[in-house]
Amino acid sequence: MKILLIGANGTIGSAVATELEQRHEVLRIGRSSGDYQVDISDSTSIRRLFEQTGRFDALVCAAGNVTFAPLEEMNAEHFALGLNDKLMGQVNLLLIGREFINDGGSFTFTSGILNRDPIRSGASAALVNGALDAFVKAAAIELPRGLRVNAISPTVLVEAMSAYAPYFRGFKPVPAVDVALAYAKSVEGLQSGQTYQVG
Amino acid sequence: MKILLIGANGTIGSAVATELEQRHEVLRIGRSSGDYQVDISDSTSIRRLFEQTGRFDALVCAAGNVTFAPLEEMNAEHFALGLNDKLMGQVNLLLIGREFINDGGSFTFTSGILNRDPIRSGASAALVNGALDAFVKAAAIELPRGLRVNAISPTVLVEAMSAYAPYFRGFKPVPAVDVALAYAKSVEGLQSGQTYQVG
Repeated sequence: MKILLIGANGTIGSAVATELEQRHEVLRIGRSSGDYQVDISDSTSIRRLFEQTGRFDALVCAAGNVTFAPLEEMNAEHFALGLNDKLMGQVNLLLIGREFINDGGSFTFTSGILNRDPIRSGASAALVNGALDAFVKAAAIELPRGLRVNAISPTVLVEAMSAYAPYFRGFKPVPAVDVALAYAKSVEGLQSGQTYQVG
Repeated sequence: MKILLIGANGTIGSAVATELEQRHEVLRIGRSSGDYQVDISDSTSIRRLFEQTGRFDALVCAAGNVTFAPLEEMNAEHFALGLNDKLMGQVNLLLIGREFINDGGSFTFTSGILNRDPIRSGASAALVNGALDAFVKAAAIELPRGLRVNAISPTVLVEAMSAYAPYFRGFKPVPAVDVALAYAKSVEGLQSGQTYQVG
């Protein structure tokens, strides 16, 4: 398979690349690093990416920004980043990418645990994750040509605990290598409309 | 209690008004009808509403627009209505309304069944409903002063089947009077962070 991996330089993306490159051609894509660049919050940038990569069999997105801040300090502008970047960025990867994906291809997006198990400062992340989990469930039933779409919803990573432990007290972190397996299940399996929870 | 009811002229809103007016002072609010007017997609309009109503004990929103269209025909612009109106409209009612709500007050928002049980043309509705259910769960744990927030997630209404039956084949509709009970549970009960499913 020819797989587009967005966020390839991140903690999850690196582990997904290691997992998938054993069996597939992986194009590493980042905001400023990798074989190709994309800003997923910009539809024009997304279309330009696909024009550069050409047709593909699977797309994995392990990128997406949201604002973390105490709810007390948040206004609508703080929610805009998550809506434009992590949420509509990934939705647009499907809406535009479906023009370039081969029959039977798959989209695999990244949500996260915070809509199931919320934490302080996580209201925007929860909102975006809940939206993504719902979107893949609904979009899956309308996709033509055997196309599939799933979300991966990991808990906090072992590799992230040095930075984020104070926000995630009591959470059992998972190593990125375990999270990467869920991406392989989505890409190489046959299910669609699923949210694979890891941790 | 002094209760602000947005969407008071709608099918759900009318039933909620009938239920709550038996025991409370209900201010009927609509986009163009009612005692007060508000466009929930406009933060300025929301703030003006609260300046007119003054302090209150509970806010119920039974309003919010999304685009229904086959996924094949949708692009990012089709998702913008749901994000700006039903989703961020209700989020902004909390973000701005918390300045005007009395201690122990509650916000009750409206999501819907389509993130749990998706249908053709419902991708934007599913996304928005999933976001709302997640937002109330996450926001609830950060609210101060005993404030609460819940969502009501009804299936299709008996009263709407004449218009929407082709989209909801096989769904068992519920009467608006039953849905209204869930709003009373949210407003007059003590739970927070809940999505009350009706149907």
